[in-house]
Order: sequence, then structure tokens, then C-alpha cells
Amino acid sequence: MLNEISALTEVDRARSFGGWQIRYEHQSFVLDCKMTFSVYLPPQAEEANVSHVYWLSGLTCDDQNFVTKAGAQRYAAEQGLAIIAPDTSPRGNLIHDVDAWDLGQGAGFYLNATQNPWSKNYQMANYILTELIPTINKTQPIRPEQRGIFGHSMGGHGALTLALANPDLFKSVSAFSPICSPMHCPWGEKAFEQYLGQDSNAWKQYDSCELIKEHGLPWPVLVDQGTDDSFLEEQLKPELLVDASKGQPYPLILNMREGYDHSYHFISSFIGEHIKHHAQYL
Amino acid sequence: MLNEISALTEVDRARSFGGWQIRYEHQSFVLDCKMTFSVYLPPQAEEANVSHVYWLSGLTCDDQNFVTKAGAQRYAAEQGLAIIAPDTSPRGNLIHDVDAWDLGQGAGFYLNATQNPWSKNYQMANYILTELIPTINKTQPIRPEQRGIFGHSMGGHGALTLALANPDLFKSVSAFSPICSPMHCPWGEKAFEQYLGQDSNAWKQYDSCELIKEHGLPWPVLVDQGTDDSFLEEQLKPELLVDASKGQPYPLILNMREGYDHSYHFISSFIGEHIKHHAQYL
Repeated sequence: MLNEISALTEVDRARSFGGWQIRYEHQSFVLDCKMTFSVYLPPQAEEANVSHVYWLSGLTCDDQNFVTKAGAQRYAAEQGLAIIAPDTSPRGNLIHDVDAWDLGQGAGFYLNATQNPWSKNYQMANYILTELIPTINKTQPIRPEQRGIFGHSMGGHGALTLALANPDLFKSVSAFSPICSPMHCPWGEKAFEQYLGQDSNAWKQYDSCELIKEHGLPWPVLVDQGTDDSFLEEQLKPELLVDASKGQPYPLILNMREGYDHSYHFISSFIGEHIKHHAQYL
Repeated sequence: MLNEISALTEVDRARSFGGWQIRYEHQSFVLDCKMTFSVYLPPQAEEANVSHVYWLSGLTCDDQNFVTKAGAQRYAAEQGLAIIAPDTSPRGNLIHDVDAWDLGQGAGFYLNATQNPWSKNYQMANYILTELIPTINKTQPIRPEQRGIFGHSMGGHGALTLALANPDLFKSVSAFSPICSPMHCPWGEKAFEQYLGQDSNAWKQYDSCELIKEHGLPWPVLVDQGTDDSFLEEQLKPELLVDASKGQPYPLILNMREGYDHSYHFISSFIGEHIKHHAQYL
């Protein structure tokens, strides 16, 4: 499947900070449904291929939350970075779903489900690694070897786990308020049991802390977390990521941000620092 | 009615760029319904009262579009400006409405309606001038004499007309893609006929071009307009504003922005320049 690419239909395009904010649709062969994603191209991309970063969004989001709310385009234009924002799950009336905001559509957890009925479509890890990345490489004015990844909450978990499991694919990694150890929080336990089954040995490949313990931390990781985030203690648990990173050759840089919550007001306040972090390594 | 103030209920508060993004509800005595508005307070407001700017949104918006999409907080924090974002019309099941996005709820046009059934609640000019401004003056850490106003599309029209009709209340004025002469475009003609009746003499007090011809331009005005805005030729007509401003002691500064459209991607790209414009005069 690797290196197949999808035909893209451009559904929207708007000038933004001298570059272009573009939205594409395509028929995903990995997910077996129509998917939408967004790309920001900075002004520098009109002259030469640019470095690029994938943004993975959190529970309930699609590709538009980040595009409209994070205020990232200004900094991406300053640094000459493209940003690719996929959706958070397979989509559509034919895709299995349940009446919950933390499972099913909008809550794909960036893994490959093995359990029925989820396994037919919920293959978000394969979608990003084997379909979206080759498609972006072939169709966008980016430098394929200069790739970073970041995300928020469930998408912070996605960015950390996809990068830790595929360290050669990503040169820079950061996260806002990530779910640091889904094996040890209610959101993760619920989703992993449904998507991956009851055997928690199958969960470890999608748990950042387990991946660091197993394979090490091959680059510095920047994490920002608000102290007034209502999910901090029960769901996010950055202290587990700090523990897992102890003794690693590269640091985990955890910024606890006094008084900030889990919203895009928090993300937009610090997105500039994350984009500078990626630009430094790309 | 002047100088009465409303009791406010805080419904949301989030840290943003070192300041606070806050949302309030109140029972409006001018509009006779419950209204919501938002306030951004920059970090400087914790030390001293700050200058402030009102943002008026366009058709279909409420107070949240600007707050979540414009990316203004970063610049407001840099310049030490508070921003107040009201809703665009009276709201609720008891408020008259029609099945249209350019009339009724979400489309108040910042005027005082004189025609039934609109006149009972559609008093947005009075709401802002005689209720919201006194309420903000009494409850927020702002300098009451240091007030600016700006807006987008219908809200650009609102900012220009409220300021031109009340030049002593506002020290700085700017607009994105304003409806420059509602008397001479389909959106304005439809709304003014409904809200103000068929006699177009009653329309002139809400038309920027007429107000400039009648009273002059008492400060410089900054306007940004995208060249690829699909409403440019039929609805917005900045050339009428340029004509009306000829020979005035202060300039109309019109920036035509190549390739930009009518969206918040356009606004966010240039909001920093507008906030600097206001900070320069406040």
C-alpha cells in the first residue's frame, strides 16, 4: 500500500498571511471513505519546496478547528513552514459510530483498530503513515525529508505515538496538553478496549510512555500544558511522560502554563513557540 | 436611558496571551432580550486601566466569530488594548425573525429600526451607544475616554456609521471589507426598507458616505479590502467611500489586498495592522 497516492479535489482556498489555506477532499483507500484535510502553504512555497509539520487535532474536532482557531498561519508564514491538518477519524453515514464524543467518529485515536466493527475503517495510523504522507509528498511543494508533527490532547497523543513508533519519519515533535498515557486514563482505556480488545499488551504500541521506555526518546520533545485544564489530573497526566523520559539522551521540555485551560485560547497563546521549535529542527 | 448599566453574568473565562478572554450575558433593557458579548483584557489591564476598541461583526455572526477566528488577542496583548465584541442583533425565540441570513437575527445593521415589527427590539445603535458603552465603562478596567471602533462587512458599516454620527465618542476607526454605502447595494436596500421604511431620507443617517458628505471625516480611517472578495462589486463598493472622502482634512487609507477574500483568513492576516492603527490614536 505504501506510496500509493490519492487523487485530491480542492474544495476551498483562501489567501492567508501571504500564503494559501487550502482544503482538499479525497477518497481514502485505507479508511474506505471520503476524507477531508487542510494544508497551509506559506508564501515561501511559491519559490521553493518548504519544510512541513502535521497537526493532529483532539476529540470532537475535524480539520477545521485548528485552521480557524489556532492562529498558526502567521507563524508558519514567518518561518516558512507548511502545515497539514487531517481529520480525526473516518467519516460518513456508512462508518460505524456510537453516541459518544470520545469514541467513534471524531475520536479515532490515531491507531489501527483490530476489533469488530471498528477494524473495517478505523485505521487512522495507517491512513496518515501510508496514504496521507505519500499523497502530500507527491502533490504539495514540500521537502519530504523535512517533516515534523504536533497535536492537541488526543492529537498530542497521536503526534507522540506516531513519531515515537516511526522516529525516522519525523525530525521534530511537540504537543499541547497530550493524553500522555492512554493506558492509564479513562478516555484511553475506553477507546483502546473498543478498538484494540481487552489484552493490554496490544495497547503498548499506542502509549507514549511505553514507547519511550521500549525505544527511547530520539529527539527533544516540547510539551505545553495549562494548569487550569479540567482534564489535567484524570486524563492527561504529564507527570507520567516526565517519569518515562528520565535518563533519556534528549529532554522532554514540559512548560506548565499558569491559569491556562484546554481550549484553543491556550493553543493560540503558545502556537508560535511550537512552530519556532519545529522550524529549528526542520 | 444614558448611563444606566446592566448587571453582567460571566459565562466563560479563558487565559489568552497572558490576559483574559471573557464572555458575559446580560438582560438588555434597550433590546428587551438576553444578550451575550465578549471582552478581551490584555495583561496590562491587571496593573492599570487600558485603552479599548469595539469590534462589530458581520452578517450571520455572533460575538464568538471574532473571538475564535481573528487572532486579535496576540496583538491586543502586545499593544495593551482591550477589545469588546458585541452580538450583531437582538436574540431569542421571542424576537422577530425571518428566514434570511441578511435580515433579522444575525443582521441588525447597527441601526434603530422604526418599522413594525422590527422597531420593538432592533435597536442596535441605541444598545451599543446607551447601554453597552456605559456598562463597559462602569465594569471593565478600561479608560472610558480612550475608545476606538472597528468591524467587518456589516460590522464595518456599523463601525463607520456609529463613529461618524458620534465622533466625540471614538478616537480611532477602521474597517475590513465594509458595506460602504448601504443605500446603494442590495443588502442595505433590503435591510433599510424593512427596518427604516421606504423613505430613503431616513436612511442617510446610517450611510457612511452620506455621513461624511454631511459632517466631514473627523479622523483618519483605515480600510482593508480583499480584491478577490465575492461581495466587492455588488455589495461593498469602497470606491464610493473614496469618492465621499475626497477633500477631507483627514485621509481614508484604503488598502486593496491582492487575492484575499471576505473570510476571517483575510481579517486575521491584517488584524495586527488595524490594532496598531488604533493603538497609535488611543
